[in-house]
Amino acid sequence: MDRIPILRMGNTLLVTIQVDMQDQTALGLQEDLADRIAATGATGVMIDISALEIVDSFVGRMLANISGIARVLSAATVVVGMQPAVAITLVELGLSLVGVRTALDVERGLALLDRARLEHDLGR
Amino acid sequence: MDRIPILRMGNTLLVTIQVDMQDQTALGLQEDLADRIAATGATGVMIDISALEIVDSFVGRMLANISGIARVLSAATVVVGMQPAVAITLVELGLSLVGVRTALDVERGLALLDRARLEHDLGR
Repeated sequence: MDRIPILRMGNTLLVTIQVDMQDQTALGLQEDLADRIAATGATGVMIDISALEIVDSFVGRMLANISGIARVLSAATVVVGMQPAVAITLVELGLSLVGVRTALDVERGLALLDRARLEHDLGR
Repeated sequence: MDRIPILRMGNTLLVTIQVDMQDQTALGLQEDLADRIAATGATGVMIDISALEIVDSFVGRMLANISGIARVLSAATVVVGMQPAVAITLVELGLSLVGVRTALDVERGLALLDRARLEHDLGR
């Protein structure tokens, strides 16, 4: 049970991170997501981190990696549900999640992805 | 990190179960879901169990409980993503998840919930 499930909703893939990420799980998630984006032609990836009470530099880098991989496969990524305390810690650590879009919750995240698709279709 | 996140998408609440459920986690999830249904007026609950390789009688009962609680709060429940091996084991164990709707994936689950809402609106 060390694979994180990826749920497909229309042209968006949804991932809920609930466990502390180990190296292997994080690598597996990146590979699985790349495969699923390629297989489904999804144009959006949503990562819910509302269950995470700690986001360290490892997780921060993983989120940036996923965002980068998705971008190359022409999908936008949005991270949703970050707890306020996590945001504070991230800034204190100097991790600003460059290149990663964020939204407060899933609904706002979906709206953000829709906007990203529109911008993409209009040639950015 | 022993609370399972509940994601709201429109009038549906989505839960992804990724960890082996302990008594406390299962009880917490039931309470959280009841609270969220009451607070949001959600009319559908979707539970993704694609990450579970084993569904024993404890988890089976929890799924039935959640379905029952949601029904009392006038929300329909659908369990999605059950692995084929899990379905086989459930039947062999004589657990048939009475009263629990199932669907192969999230998209089919959403369609099933839409249908359940329609039936509900039409007076069943």
